[in-house]
Amino acid sequence: MNCEVNGFPPLVCCQDNSMHMHEDKETGRVEGFSDAVFAIAMTLLVIEIKIPSHEQVAVNGLAQSLAALWPSYLAFLTSFVTILVIWVHHHWLFGLIRKIDHPFLYCNGLLLLLVTFVPFPTALLAEYSTHPEAKVAANLYIGTFLVISLAFDVLWRYASIRLLSSNATSVKKDEAAQITKQYRFGPPLYFAAFGLSFVSETLSLALCLLLALFFALGGWPIRKS
Amino acid sequence: MNCEVNGFPPLVCCQDNSMHMHEDKETGRVEGFSDAVFAIAMTLLVIEIKIPSHEQVAVNGLAQSLAALWPSYLAFLTSFVTILVIWVHHHWLFGLIRKIDHPFLYCNGLLLLLVTFVPFPTALLAEYSTHPEAKVAANLYIGTFLVISLAFDVLWRYASIRLLSSNATSVKKDEAAQITKQYRFGPPLYFAAFGLSFVSETLSLALCLLLALFFALGGWPIRKS
Amino acid sequence: MNCEVNGFPPLVCCQDNSMHMHEDKETGRVEGFSDAVFAIAMTLLVIEIKIPSHEQVAVNGLAQSLAALWPSYLAFLTSFVTILVIWVHHHWLFGLIRKIDHPFLYCNGLLLLLVTFVPFPTALLAEYSTHPEAKVAANLYIGTFLVISLAFDVLWRYASIRLLSSNATSVKKDEAAQITKQYRFGPPLYFAAFGLSFVSETLSLALCLLLALFFALGGWPIRKS
Amino acid sequence: MNCEVNGFPPLVCCQDNSMHMHEDKETGRVEGFSDAVFAIAMTLLVIEIKIPSHEQVAVNGLAQSLAALWPSYLAFLTSFVTILVIWVHHHWLFGLIRKIDHPFLYCNGLLLLLVTFVPFPTALLAEYSTHPEAKVAANLYIGTFLVISLAFDVLWRYASIRLLSSNATSVKKDEAAQITKQYRFGPPLYFAAFGLSFVSETLSLALCLLLALFFALGGWPIRKS
Repeated sequence: MNCEVNGFPPLVCCQDNSMHMHEDKETGRVEGFSDAVFAIAMTLLVIEIKIPSHEQVAVNGLAQSLAALWPSYLAFLTSFVTILVIWVHHHWLFGLIRKIDHPFLYCNGLLLLLVTFVPFPTALLAEYSTHPEAKVAANLYIGTFLVISLAFDVLWRYASIRLLSSNATSVKKDEAAQITKQYRFGPPLYFAAFGLSFVSETLSLALCLLLALFFALGGWPIRKS
Repeated sequence: MNCEVNGFPPLVCCQDNSMHMHEDKETGRVEGFSDAVFAIAMTLLVIEIKIPSHEQVAVNGLAQSLAALWPSYLAFLTSFVTILVIWVHHHWLFGLIRKIDHPFLYCNGLLLLLVTFVPFPTALLAEYSTHPEAKVAANLYIGTFLVISLAFDVLWRYASIRLLSSNATSVKKDEAAQITKQYRFGPPLYFAAFGLSFVSETLSLALCLLLALFFALGGWPIRKS
Repeated sequence: MNCEVNGFPPLVCCQDNSMHMHEDKETGRVEGFSDAVFAIAMTLLVIEIKIPSHEQVAVNGLAQSLAALWPSYLAFLTSFVTILVIWVHHHWLFGLIRKIDHPFLYCNGLLLLLVTFVPFPTALLAEYSTHPEAKVAANLYIGTFLVISLAFDVLWRYASIRLLSSNATSVKKDEAAQITKQYRFGPPLYFAAFGLSFVSETLSLALCLLLALFFALGGWPIRKS
Repeated sequence: MNCEVNGFPPLVCCQDNSMHMHEDKETGRVEGFSDAVFAIAMTLLVIEIKIPSHEQVAVNGLAQSLAALWPSYLAFLTSFVTILVIWVHHHWLFGLIRKIDHPFLYCNGLLLLLVTFVPFPTALLAEYSTHPEAKVAANLYIGTFLVISLAFDVLWRYASIRLLSSNATSVKKDEAAQITKQYRFGPPLYFAAFGLSFVSETLSLALCLLLALFFALGGWPIRKS
């Protein structure tokens, strides 16, 4: 592996680059695939907002029928922002690691499975949010995000222990420690929202939207370039 | 960090490249994710063109039933061209910047949220364009594009002030100034179309299609390579 | 621009690489976006194959109801193979060019518009292929591919005249000439199929599937690496 | 092609890199396109889980109506995991090859065609899994995966014989041999599941899910970086 001939630094530089490039390509492809799944799941959410039927419009008028769709808009907004936040954190996590192993791929696959499932509870919540059994829809909706937060937590813990780039700068290690601290809040908060959904679906969903905004604003991590 | 040994230019060249490459990768991933969302939103539009029912065909024949779908075709065309124009400008904006920060990510996320929403007002307009309350559908449709033009304006202003590559050539700075001038027309024109949609839905939608074509033809920016 | 210091070839090599890399990135992004549109249009085709209703199954049994969907399968297959062939040629065309300009972007956008439209005539053909007015569905279906072949022809002619890499090897120029010759057959053949669709929808669709396979097998171009 | 001037190793290194980069780009684009198709097919699966109707909920309650959707969840899970496993193997296969030729592109296109078809038998199985004719749905579902396993087998055999990087390390060749041995089990096992689906749809589907998990856990190959 020692290609340093006659003390020429360029060769060393190139080799080092190409090695990083190889590892980057490996994680890059898994990230690219994950990104596509996130993007599609987010975009599919809009399909679940059904345009009002002609019968409904004949009775209430178009403007009022559209206004009556507010649970759909709210569910769309909450799910979109939540998946976007997951994507940002996922993307950021991939910026810290340089290699990928079997357990990580399992966790990542599980996370993608859960994310692609999100349009279903979103549509269910939109349809049944004003129904007497709205609590059941809220249970499933928030339960899904609770499981996602747990899956992400496992993914992050594993990555932070095993996959951190061996030559990570201390800046990155500080970032990682800071993130671990912040992520500690995710599952408990979603667990609280899940518990609340058995008491009041309205409050639990408001908390769910607040959590998405909180993680978007307060916990938006980005690599300093 | 100083790898310049014995004054070898190759090493300097490599380092400079790899630094740009790192920054490019950062913006490249956010752009790749955004591109996927744009592409899916554009492609989902066709799902909203519903094939005519057998009952309708039994009465009017297939050819006439297909002709009666003209509002769907027109809405599809207008939305497709508008999203394509947004994509071109978005892509072009990313070519001018080299780094990304928190506020930019918020604005970009908001823009993506609005773009993924477009298939809903498009389907609504196609369904209710010949209905007595067509104005409401036109309001929502053009209102959506008005909000998108505002979001894009904010994104561009922020990027042009804060994120322009520090070593941008004067050519790029001229381009940026030119774009700022051109973008000044976007929100007012969409605001005019929005106002017009309260008077005549037909005229407002014609204006909306004209705006898409105007920005496509007149304002198609591309980096000179 | 002359960085050749002390006759060191490495620097020259690096610069040349980075210049190509810049141009490649530009075309690469437009190609990546186009690829996403192609991939989604191909994958959305399956949504149009509707599973048989319980009423239908109660009368005819599940196996026979599934067999009765053969027009859907055939339309799915024909559209998939045709879009795949368009993608291969599109991808190959991008391998020959190094830069992109305004008219090329218009043509490419038009091609994407037409490709995203394909799921609609595909679903229409599947639904009405055994209807007395099946010819109308065949007209629209084959007419769409005729327009696509014309749009691709324009795209190719423009690219081959204006955008061929200035330092293209003679091998590439030979390939380009060969392709131009081959593409000459596309529009006339689809025009013939379109004309035939007014006489016999069955024959015209068989020809359409044959054309897709012909271009897939006979005309599959690939860059020799 | 001999650019080795004055015995400078840097130039040789760069050229070698750029050559690999060119070949990587070629396979990379086909892989990127395939990845998009895989991601979309996986994400579209959720659209087939239909939310319970208000009539059904009025009779059974929301919780029970959701529980009654278990065949949909199971079909979603099985199809998702199976496509994910195919993607992992596909991605891994592309890591071993450096070039692409016509027959490989045909096989890859056929594999993509089959993968995009998966949402249809998945929806069919979910809808008819408790129907007297459930065996027919299971036949089609498992039959689809049997054909996919055959298509992947052909793709792999062809690639392992013809497209292995000429300068593949012996480690890679060992990996390839090991994979060939493992893949020998795919088609026979799916053939067994297919046969079983004529006897008991429940057992055959359980076997199908087990196979997906077996290939996910036992046969998860990853390049050691």
